[in-house]
Amino acid sequence: MAILITIMVLELKEPSGANWSDLHSRLPVFLSYLLSFMYLGIYWNNHHHMLQATERVTGAVLWANMALLFWLSLVPFVTAWAGANNLAPAPTALYGIILLLAALSFTILQATIIKAEGPNSILKKAIGRDRKEWLSIALYVTAIVVSGWVPWMSYAFYIIVALIWLVPDRRIERYLD
Amino acid sequence: MAILITIMVLELKEPSGANWSDLHSRLPVFLSYLLSFMYLGIYWNNHHHMLQATERVTGAVLWANMALLFWLSLVPFVTAWAGANNLAPAPTALYGIILLLAALSFTILQATIIKAEGPNSILKKAIGRDRKEWLSIALYVTAIVVSGWVPWMSYAFYIIVALIWLVPDRRIERYLD
Amino acid sequence: MAILITIMVLELKEPSGANWSDLHSRLPVFLSYLLSFMYLGIYWNNHHHMLQATERVTGAVLWANMALLFWLSLVPFVTAWAGANNLAPAPTALYGIILLLAALSFTILQATIIKAEGPNSILKKAIGRDRKEWLSIALYVTAIVVSGWVPWMSYAFYIIVALIWLVPDRRIERYLD
Amino acid sequence: MAILITIMVLELKEPSGANWSDLHSRLPVFLSYLLSFMYLGIYWNNHHHMLQATERVTGAVLWANMALLFWLSLVPFVTAWAGANNLAPAPTALYGIILLLAALSFTILQATIIKAEGPNSILKKAIGRDRKEWLSIALYVTAIVVSGWVPWMSYAFYIIVALIWLVPDRRIERYLD
Repeated sequence: MAILITIMVLELKEPSGANWSDLHSRLPVFLSYLLSFMYLGIYWNNHHHMLQATERVTGAVLWANMALLFWLSLVPFVTAWAGANNLAPAPTALYGIILLLAALSFTILQATIIKAEGPNSILKKAIGRDRKEWLSIALYVTAIVVSGWVPWMSYAFYIIVALIWLVPDRRIERYLD
Repeated sequence: MAILITIMVLELKEPSGANWSDLHSRLPVFLSYLLSFMYLGIYWNNHHHMLQATERVTGAVLWANMALLFWLSLVPFVTAWAGANNLAPAPTALYGIILLLAALSFTILQATIIKAEGPNSILKKAIGRDRKEWLSIALYVTAIVVSGWVPWMSYAFYIIVALIWLVPDRRIERYLD
Repeated sequence: MAILITIMVLELKEPSGANWSDLHSRLPVFLSYLLSFMYLGIYWNNHHHMLQATERVTGAVLWANMALLFWLSLVPFVTAWAGANNLAPAPTALYGIILLLAALSFTILQATIIKAEGPNSILKKAIGRDRKEWLSIALYVTAIVVSGWVPWMSYAFYIIVALIWLVPDRRIERYLD
Repeated sequence: MAILITIMVLELKEPSGANWSDLHSRLPVFLSYLLSFMYLGIYWNNHHHMLQATERVTGAVLWANMALLFWLSLVPFVTAWAGANNLAPAPTALYGIILLLAALSFTILQATIIKAEGPNSILKKAIGRDRKEWLSIALYVTAIVVSGWVPWMSYAFYIIVALIWLVPDRRIERYLD
């Protein structure tokens, strides 16, 4: 994920002029970079916590992990598309679709780890009910639906989901203590 | 390999327009990206399992590993060429040639590790007969041969090989348990 | 950070001609690359020492770390802008602003780790008074202020700060011994 | 170094046409990529062996390491320049200069580690006399000198040095056994 984050910086091309005003044209790209950086940071963080609580890695876990990485690897692509087309409906929706697929993969990865660990899974006890996961998924779906009419509202939803997760997963942290 | 995967995303340039129809032109690149992602994921996975069962790293092992990495490092290049020239014979064949060379390197790497570990090699016992390895190599050769006449059939073969390997190498997993 | 450094090399595009004189046009980019390489090297080094002295990683620490990485991730961008516009005021100032924000994040990260570790923090004892941190911040601010009039002097300040830090943080090294 | 290697693949742009003949134009770039891959592989390998025999990492060691990484980080740049200007004198010489500076940095790094470890340095005993290091440096200097007249001979020298080092440093391997 560290690599994905840095790959995204490559989309932040330097402006052609040398004045502050030339920096203006980079603003949408910068904002979409900032949002995607937050998302990848959140995934990095929670993924780190999740693996800390994981005791058994099976083939199924590795593949669920790979699916998550696949959707996250498309984040730089949608970030660049969204950044280049300020608030256009299609990139706004695709941004949400990729986030939605990543969120579903993350939830599946959690379930796969818990299944592999059996009834005494530490991760299961640590997570409890996965309310945050399902709330996020509902918000993504809403954001995708409204993107055809009011794209800025979709971004508002993406920001809200990011803020919900910005607090790292204390559930696991608390449990590991 | 994580780096190679992310490097490939850079080939997925954002489309020039902001509509869903503009995304259409990216479809062949996306499909070749998806196939290559699966292949690199498979190698990552099995390579991880192989190293887990490896107890002795000699210079020869390091160099066999380097040869594997060399061919895998060319995957982003052939992916980009194949993606830009939908079903053209030459890129289709070269895609298979690189996969074939990577598969041969992987088989040589396995043999080198087993040789370095001597008669009691855990890896040797875990792998048993390397049927999957030789079946893949035969399928690659067939795909390269037919690429001059029916390129889409070559891709069908590439997908079949990927599916054969998608099940991670339970042989090693079972043995390590 | 290793990735950020290598990403920056991508900005060093090969000159169009094949003569030594063609290399000349690459000089400003090369010098800005050299300066940024030193800075990222310094951060890598001191970050490594800091984490060695860190015993407890909380969510707050992870987020302070993420903030530091965000500002450092913008270094390739400002390096490219500064390199393309030799000594222009705006890129010179922005270069300093990003360095300043990274330095503030580093100081906050240190404070967050110390707070998480409580009264017996090893890092706290190792660091002692953070004079170097505040001197750097003062020099960055000065450099940003003068960039509107004498941009080369700003770079002189950036080089001075780099030299101050080039000596790795013996405070921690001494303490760990 | 893995990152540097993969960064180089980005210089291997796909040819514009879809025929085997279009691949022809990529041949010089491919050959320079192959040579640089071998060099970075050799450094990776020997660097790995060196660190295995290193017991004490001081600030000086970290900085000597950083200097080595700096020169190696320029390898993708000179590889691209050399690949784009088949056998032109200036890129040929610069390629050698960067390799020479990397080799000197490597020798200095070895000496710094040995100095940090004191009279009983394992690395010192493992390395013995550093004949290979000095032979390489002499060959690089010769290659740089002749590049103005017969550039292909310079590449012959670069290949010879690579072959000398391709055998991984058995000195250390033997000693660690």
